[in-house]
This record gives sequence, C-alpha cells and structure tokens, in this order.
Amino acid sequence: MHKIPVGVLGASGYAGRELCALIQRHDGLTLAYATANSQRGETAELPRGGHVTFDAADDVQLGSAALVFSALPHGASAEWVSRARAAGARVVDLSADLRIGNGASEGIPYGLTELRRERIRGAECVANPGCYPTSALIALAPLFEQGLIAPGATVHISAASGVSGAGLSPRLDLLFGEVTENYRAYGTGNAHRHLNEMRALATEYGADVDLLFTPHLLPIARGILSTITVPLGRPLEDLMAPWRERYAGEPFIELADALPELRHVAQRNVVRIAVRGVAGVRTPTIQVFSAIDNLMKGAAGQALQNANLMLGLAEQTGLPA
Amino acid sequence: MHKIPVGVLGASGYAGRELCALIQRHDGLTLAYATANSQRGETAELPRGGHVTFDAADDVQLGSAALVFSALPHGASAEWVSRARAAGARVVDLSADLRIGNGASEGIPYGLTELRRERIRGAECVANPGCYPTSALIALAPLFEQGLIAPGATVHISAASGVSGAGLSPRLDLLFGEVTENYRAYGTGNAHRHLNEMRALATEYGADVDLLFTPHLLPIARGILSTITVPLGRPLEDLMAPWRERYAGEPFIELADALPELRHVAQRNVVRIAVRGVAGVRTPTIQVFSAIDNLMKGAAGQALQNANLMLGLAEQTGLPA
Amino acid sequence: MHKIPVGVLGASGYAGRELCALIQRHDGLTLAYATANSQRGETAELPRGGHVTFDAADDVQLGSAALVFSALPHGASAEWVSRARAAGARVVDLSADLRIGNGASEGIPYGLTELRRERIRGAECVANPGCYPTSALIALAPLFEQGLIAPGATVHISAASGVSGAGLSPRLDLLFGEVTENYRAYGTGNAHRHLNEMRALATEYGADVDLLFTPHLLPIARGILSTITVPLGRPLEDLMAPWRERYAGEPFIELADALPELRHVAQRNVVRIAVRGVAGVRTPTIQVFSAIDNLMKGAAGQALQNANLMLGLAEQTGLPA
Amino acid sequence: MHKIPVGVLGASGYAGRELCALIQRHDGLTLAYATANSQRGETAELPRGGHVTFDAADDVQLGSAALVFSALPHGASAEWVSRARAAGARVVDLSADLRIGNGASEGIPYGLTELRRERIRGAECVANPGCYPTSALIALAPLFEQGLIAPGATVHISAASGVSGAGLSPRLDLLFGEVTENYRAYGTGNAHRHLNEMRALATEYGADVDLLFTPHLLPIARGILSTITVPLGRPLEDLMAPWRERYAGEPFIELADALPELRHVAQRNVVRIAVRGVAGVRTPTIQVFSAIDNLMKGAAGQALQNANLMLGLAEQTGLPA
Repeated sequence: MHKIPVGVLGASGYAGRELCALIQRHDGLTLAYATANSQRGETAELPRGGHVTFDAADDVQLGSAALVFSALPHGASAEWVSRARAAGARVVDLSADLRIGNGASEGIPYGLTELRRERIRGAECVANPGCYPTSALIALAPLFEQGLIAPGATVHISAASGVSGAGLSPRLDLLFGEVTENYRAYGTGNAHRHLNEMRALATEYGADVDLLFTPHLLPIARGILSTITVPLGRPLEDLMAPWRERYAGEPFIELADALPELRHVAQRNVVRIAVRGVAGVRTPTIQVFSAIDNLMKGAAGQALQNANLMLGLAEQTGLPA
Repeated sequence: MHKIPVGVLGASGYAGRELCALIQRHDGLTLAYATANSQRGETAELPRGGHVTFDAADDVQLGSAALVFSALPHGASAEWVSRARAAGARVVDLSADLRIGNGASEGIPYGLTELRRERIRGAECVANPGCYPTSALIALAPLFEQGLIAPGATVHISAASGVSGAGLSPRLDLLFGEVTENYRAYGTGNAHRHLNEMRALATEYGADVDLLFTPHLLPIARGILSTITVPLGRPLEDLMAPWRERYAGEPFIELADALPELRHVAQRNVVRIAVRGVAGVRTPTIQVFSAIDNLMKGAAGQALQNANLMLGLAEQTGLPA
Repeated sequence: MHKIPVGVLGASGYAGRELCALIQRHDGLTLAYATANSQRGETAELPRGGHVTFDAADDVQLGSAALVFSALPHGASAEWVSRARAAGARVVDLSADLRIGNGASEGIPYGLTELRRERIRGAECVANPGCYPTSALIALAPLFEQGLIAPGATVHISAASGVSGAGLSPRLDLLFGEVTENYRAYGTGNAHRHLNEMRALATEYGADVDLLFTPHLLPIARGILSTITVPLGRPLEDLMAPWRERYAGEPFIELADALPELRHVAQRNVVRIAVRGVAGVRTPTIQVFSAIDNLMKGAAGQALQNANLMLGLAEQTGLPA
Repeated sequence: MHKIPVGVLGASGYAGRELCALIQRHDGLTLAYATANSQRGETAELPRGGHVTFDAADDVQLGSAALVFSALPHGASAEWVSRARAAGARVVDLSADLRIGNGASEGIPYGLTELRRERIRGAECVANPGCYPTSALIALAPLFEQGLIAPGATVHISAASGVSGAGLSPRLDLLFGEVTENYRAYGTGNAHRHLNEMRALATEYGADVDLLFTPHLLPIARGILSTITVPLGRPLEDLMAPWRERYAGEPFIELADALPELRHVAQRNVVRIAVRGVAGVRTPTIQVFSAIDNLMKGAAGQALQNANLMLGLAEQTGLPA
C-alpha cells in the first residue's frame, strides 16, 4: 500500500515523540521528517521501541509531507502552520494557537473528533484540542447538546494530570525529587489557559453555565482524570443515557459502570466515562468522571485520529484503543 | 520528669505505629502497652526508628495507662473504649465510632483541637476526627463561624489522599502494582462515611449549606489535599482574613501565600491553608486549599495533641510542626 | 483466517492477564477459555483494553484448546499440565514446575526461545523460563557458548525487579505504602528459586562457573534489570561481538550502545543488552546490563513467542517489539 | 544556652537545605547565613518545616560563623573553603574537592565520623565523605581493619541511589516523567568519581583488594542501598561479629537481622547493616547490605555530626537517629 508522507514539527517533546511512534507503526503513513532545532542530527528513542533522527525545521521541505503535525510550543506554532500550509501541506496543530477561544481560529475546526467529525474531514487545518479540554468536553458535550444543565449553574471541573502534560522541559519543580510523594493544585483562580477553549465550546452550544476549572499535578507520568460536577435542570432517569445515545458506536469512547482509573486508559486513545448521581444536595446533581491518556487522546492520538479523517483513511488506523 | 503511662490499642496499623513512634519520643509520656491481637509477641519497626512489641489486648491491664489511644477499626473500637474507661483510663478514640454525626457521640467532644480546645481539655474521652474531615473542617470553620458562605450553597470538597488512609490491610487494589501510575475517585455519590462528621459540624455552626465530598486515591503513601470551593454571601475584601483572625497564634495552622503541597506537610502535625478568589463565575466564590499529613494532623498527631491537652501537658509537646 | 483456539489456566494474575490481552489482539489465535477458580464468573479488565470472563478450571473442556498456557502457581501447575496434555492439548507452562534444574523436566524443552528454537518448535510441552533467568541467561549464553568466562570464576548477577514479579497477591509487604520510596534486597544468600534453572543452563553449556544471584525489589510495577559482572578468560577486543554474532537477526534481542533502562523495554517482548569493560581490576572483567519487561519477555510474551513456534505461526505474531 | 553561629555555603541544593533544617532545630547552633548566589534574596521552604532566606556568598562575612559548611559544587568549593578558613572559620566541606584520593586532601581528615573521630575532633577542616562511600566504607571498614578479605579479591559494590543524590539541577533525565517506573545503571566501567575515596581508604587500611563499584538510579527521592559482595580469606563463624565488635556503642550504626530497607533509614542519620553468607560458591563469600539516607548520613547529617565533634558538642545533638 502506498504510504502518505507526513511530517512532525517540534518532535522532541512528549507529544512529538508519541506522534513519531504512532506514525512509524501506521499502515498508511510514513514519516517524511521530524524536526527539533535544539536536537538536530540527534537520534532519540521512541516510546514502545523505535528511533527517530531530528532535523532542523529550516532544513526540511515542509511540502514533502502531505500533512504536517505541529507539536511546537504555543506562540511559536502559528507561524510554522502558515508556512506548512503555504508549502501545500495540510496541518494538524497541537498547540493552542489556533484553537477556538484563542482569537486566531476563524474557520479552523476544533479537533474534538467525535464532536466535529464532518468539519475535520474536509479541513486544510485542524486545531487539536488541549488535554484537559478533551477530557472535560467529551464528557460535557452530551449535556450541552441535550440542554440538561441547570441554567446559570456553575460546572466544577476538578482535574488532575500527570507531569507529561507540562512537557519535556528542565523545570526544577518537575524533577522526580520534587514530584514524588507530592500533590498540588496549580493554575488556580479559574485562570488556566485551557478555560478559553472550554468556554468557547460551551458558548457554541449555547450553554448558560459558568465553568470552574481547577487543575492539579499528580505524581504519575501520564493521564488526566476530570471529576466534573454538574447541577441539572431536572433529575435524569437513566444516568448514562445522554452519553450512551450521543456516543453510540464511537470506537474511542468507553462508557463504564466502574469509576474510570488512569491505568485503564494508559497508552490508549480513548475517553472513559462513568456517571454518578449525588445524594444529599438540594439541586439535582451528577458527577461525570472522565479519564484519558493526556499524550494519546489528549494529544498525539487525537491528532492522528484527525489526520486519518483528513486524509481519507479509516479513523481508527494506527490508534491503540 | 515523671512520665505519664499511655497505651495504644490497635497499634499495628499505620496510625497506631505513628502513635507509638510519637509516644516513644515524647518527653512527658511513656508507652505502657501497645496491642495488636494478630501480631501478639511480634516486634515491629516504627517510623523514624525504634521498635515496639505488641501484646494481645486481653493480656494488658487497660488501667495501667492513664490514657488510652484506640486505633482499633470502626465498629470494634467503641467496646474497647468502654472497657478502658471502666478501667479508669481516659481515652482518645481514633475510630469513627464516637464522632459527631455517628450516633453514639453524646457528650464526647469532637477532637478538632483548634475548634474544641476547652471541651477537650477536661474530657474523659475524645473522638479524634477523621483525616478528610480534619483537612476540610479546619479550612471551613472560619467561614462557618463568620457566616460567610452563601445561604443554601453547595460547598464542593474535592479531596485526594495517599494510600495510608486506607490502612495497612492486604487489599489487592492497594498493591503497589495497582496504585502506581494510577489515580481514581472512590466513595462517590456523596456517600463517604466521613460526610457524617462534616455535616454534623456544619449543623453545629448553623450553616445552611450542602456538602459535596469527592475523595480520590493518590499514588503516594501519605497526605491529603482538599480543594474546597465555596460560594460566598458577599465578596471578601481580604481573602485570608477569616483564617488569619480565627487561627492567630495557632502553632499547627499554617496560612500560606503559595498553594500548599503535600510535601510541605509530610511528617508534620499541621494544616496548611491557602485561599484563592475565583474569576469568571457569577457568584462570588473562593477556593480554599488545605493540606495535611493524614497520619499526623489527620490521625496520630492530632490524637496526641488532644492527649497533651487532656493530661495538662503543653499542647505542642512531642509533635513535629 | 482460521484462528487457533488456546486456553489460559490461572488467568487472573499479572502474567495470565497479559496472556489474555496478547491473545485477544493476536491475528492467529482465539481465546477458548481463561480460568481462575477464585474469580469464576467474574469479568476483569485487561491491560491496554479489553475484558475477560473467568471460568473455573473444572468447568472447561481443556481439549477445546489446541494449546494451553498454564499460569498457575508453582506446585499447582504440573498436574494441570498433565491434564491438558491428556486432553490432547499442547502446553506452555509458565510455572517453575517443569523447568530445567527443577527435577521434573525430562524431555521438556526450556523455553528460552532464542536458545532453544528447534526443540521448542516440535515440542508438545515447553517450560517457560523464569523472569530473572530470562534476563540473565540471554545475556550470558553467548559467553557460555563461546567459552569466554574465566574458568572457576564467580559470575555476579545483581538484579532488580518491579513488584509484578511477585504476582497479584495480597501481601502486606507489597502494598503501595510499603513499597513506594523503598528498595531492598530479598532472597539473599544465593538461595533464590530461580538459581536452579540458571545453574542448570550453565551446566548444559559446560560452563565452569559459580553463579551468585542477588535480587532486589524496585518501587516500579514492571521490569527487570540485571547487572551481570563476568571475569573473562582473556580480554575481549570487540566488547559487543559475542552478542552481535550470536543474536544477529533476532527480532527480540536489542543490542545497545547506551545503558538499557527499564522504560526502554516496558510493554515490549525484548531483551535489551549493553556491555561495558571494567577498569581498575586485575582480572579482565566486563559488565553486561540486561533489561526486560518481566511480564512480557519474562513471562507472557515469551510464552506466546514459544506458542507461535509450536503452532507453526510466525514467531513475531502478536508480540510488541 | 549560648548558640554557636554557623554558616552554609551553597544552601539551595538538597544537602544545603537539609543542613539549614538541621541547624534550625539544633540546640547548640544558630544559622548565621545561608548563601545561594542564584537565589539571593529568595526565601525557600525547608524540609520538615521552616524557611531560609539566601544571601549571596559575596555579601556575607564568612568569619561571622565559627564553622562553615560548604555544600558548593565540586570544583567550586575548594576556593570558598580557603576563604572561610582565612576568615577564621572552621570548615566542613561536603564537596569532593578535599577528600582523600582527590589530590588536595593533605592533612584534612576524611569525615567518616565513626572511623576518624579523633582526627575530626581537633580539625580545622574536614572533608565530608560522598554518599556512596559512606554506605560502602562503613560496611567494609571492619573487614579491612580485621584483615578478613581474601587477598587480591574483587569486592563488588552494587549500589542504588535515589535521585536527590544527583542534586537539585534541571536535568531532563531527572524529570519525574523520565525517572518514574524506570531504573538504570550509570557511571559504569568502574569509573565513578566516588571510587577515588573508596580506593584511598582501602589503601590506608592496607587492603589488597580491587573495588568494583556499579551505581544505579532508583525512582525514589532519597536513600542508598549498597549490596557488597566480599570473598573472605576464611569463613566467618559469627557473621555479624566484625561489625558488632567494631561498632559497639555507636549511636548511628544499626546492625540488623532483617535485610535493611531504605524506608528504615529515611530521614535518619544512620547506617543500617545486615550480613548474609553466600551458599553455592567455591570461595567463602558474604554479602553486606548497607542502607543510608543519602542526604542525612550520606551528606548533611554526617556533616553536622562532624561539626558537633569539632565544636565540642555532644555528637548526637540535633541528629535524627
């Protein structure tokens, strides 16, 4: 089978290396180039085996790839997305630069695959969602769509992420000795960058809600669990019905009776969701628990899922579910 | 100096061994006995050095101790508390059996030391609070006392605990291989046993609130962080003022500008608290972050703090702050 | 393609569940049954997704599988191996019962695939090696075969394993709280059960060596690193030559310049080996570093590798390398 | 009681902060200054509570301290030791610069307290040992002193350390995501810097041995376990006798029947030692297992132990044993 060449910009970080690993195992894609300016010429080990040698971004022909994944940092990515598009490549941008709620996103579909499949399929460029928003919005969308949330309510998204969400950067506070046997909140005051895209999607759905998002840092490498508390307009008779109906047949959405655990989703491109009713409070309230691997469904996996769609490949190709 | 003899029932668990370790280093106390029926005659290593040899509870003279700590399991403790009292000993009960909200607590002070100091001082028996309630209620009490919470509001207590909170019991789901690189909620649906004492204390303060408590299990040995979201009746001008005023001079309450981390409180008998305002929501709202070591301020440390008070010793004696 | 039915006895442990997970993804095999007497009728989550429902061993037709994997405990396995063979099934036994050096192994090939491929191919029953021996013997075999070790020398095998090597059993000393931030030796005095098969293989090769094996317990879930110190009969000119020659073309043997790390081999059916010369000692000496995933190449993966051979399938089928 | 002023140079690292924490709790010492040029003016949290504010080294009067601890990096420390001594302060240097086997150590006692107590007591300057050498040499010294090792033998020191041994530096390979669930050797080929002082001490004792030292990196914050294999000149009748005799009455040496675990020594200024005979090898051989907290007995604790001696204070003052 003819393989479609794809490129990865910013390939030396956690998401970039996951992408390279997924591409190397993909039946329909071949890795045209992987760039990392600070490591040009160096060869790195990939997750689950294999290696990649990095080029400098200036040294590659961007257009030699039919599709380019940009895993460059926020702020730096938008320009390279433009260059890649000018060179004739389609783009999946993993940075926040082009996401809804971030100003520059006009006409660029937000790549929550299960919610935007048709727009993604024909897009020249897709803005891949943030990791926290993926876990929260896949969980919330059925409630938004079906108008189930109490008007004016505050939806609490208390989430915890492994350290790979912070990237592969030499920060003292991310050293093993500072993270092990530790746990803390961060980005508090409802000020985390990821709120933009969560609020923008809620607005797209016309939801009259306030979102209160509190991220925490876990002493684990990968995974995000969002514990989402939702006051309802009226009690639900069948707690799981909104998700069961919305996500019927979705290969990467797992509805579970048991509470999701991060080990259940590690290394997999899935969102696992369970729902619980809340006793002893006056407003009918549910809690939705949503677990993802932040580097898979929260980054590289979903990026590849989107690329599969854009390139006319079967959506599940090359994705561990 | 004459040392007062104290005993520990149920000494082989995490809290019991912490108690033995604290007592062995205490200038005013001596360990009369430590019981663990299943390990009678065995010698165990204590945290931070030292050893203890266990007796069977039936083999010790309960009254040879002036004060008895019961670290027996819930359900089994109440009877031994009665026996110890009948034998003339005062008691600090670390189980839930005699706590407020649990039915059998009449006249028995709830041992949140900073909130009940005078009642504890003269008590024959004190019910030591649960670990989660300690972290949540020390954080919430100033708001309860000063009537700052919006009437009818739901207070969200999203908390995460290290595994020692589940005790030293051979459960498959607590094996290292099942906990490392994992994270999950449990006790959901607002049904955790610790809600009883939290609600009972809120009621004592006349607070018109619903409590929504969601515990999670962290891949760490010890520590609890509670992230508490509180809708206010009116905005606070000085965010930390309620805690600063309420806990002025308290040796074991640490008010911090920085968000508390579990490593900040490890092995220490303190509650560390920071407060943040929440932007972007219609109701004035704050988040209180409260960190404790679940085995210290959340169990053995607070038990000793209470015992110091009951025995007329300086409250801080033998406690790592 | 017609799929060959295989069964797993003792499927509820770590190795058993890995086997079920591998079989469910295997293009040429189908899971006829998975037994776990204590969990009959229960459904368990498998690694990397999927589920399995356990039967009681007495309730299944052993012969409905063409090949049976026994992941039963040492001592209990041999009898079920006999029953499965009597029922007409071929067997890969993951227990120690039938391994070389353990008394009952006559005629049963020792399933270190790369060393015994031809004997395994035609065997009715294969004794799958222990995890430590796999890491040590794949590393040592080229030295044994080529007679490179100093006669009469002591070969030091200092190894460290993740906790899954101890199985999924409710032992207090394997609780998360007892293992995290801890490290210790065990099975000392050169008395670990796995020495039998290591010595037996050395003897088969006619190696005149003493083996000194010291296992340690790591605070990780999976992986074994063996640090093997070998006095040589004469210095090696090309340090990697013995392994490069012996394992040329082997898909599951990785020779590396960099020292192997456990994360390099996690979830993969490989042995990664690096070699270093030792300076400053009188006897020419090398150190061989050998890393495996104890549940993959050290258990389920190698078992499947052997089964592929026995069943005439391509050896690499269904194995993550 | 009058407190003696001491200073800490290079106080922002792991060992420096431990020193500050120990000094703040010390009954006989007061912290005159703590320097960290890159963090001048900043306040840092200390282990187990408390804070310290850093000065620039150029801004402090070195001589305002009676004794200075230098926790500066290797290479940078020697000059500041000279300056401190010129300013009239005595010095404990935690760097390698002045240790035996490192060239510049003439007349400067090597601060393995239990082995060099008298020389340390009167010294103006002491070279505090490395962490690995502390664990290995305290274990080996009785064998050296009593001439028990087989002449010409190779002593294998296979050791594993927590990441704090590498210091608080922003290295990618020490990030939590790179260390968790990982394990690896490093500094191989018998080339680790710490060999110098180990060999030098062996030479001082006249031991005719080769040392083969292999360090490994553990996914824990602190602690070192050395597994030391020693061929003996003749079998030992009473395995523990050499250590029992040599270290009788030593408050910081713990001889144990059970194998030492790192959690046994965490946060404590002790060396815990157990010994096992090795079966099945031709040469009479023992294994000595030696555990320390690398930041306590392996760095700050031993430095304070030496300072106590130098300043005429009780050796155990302020040290957690």
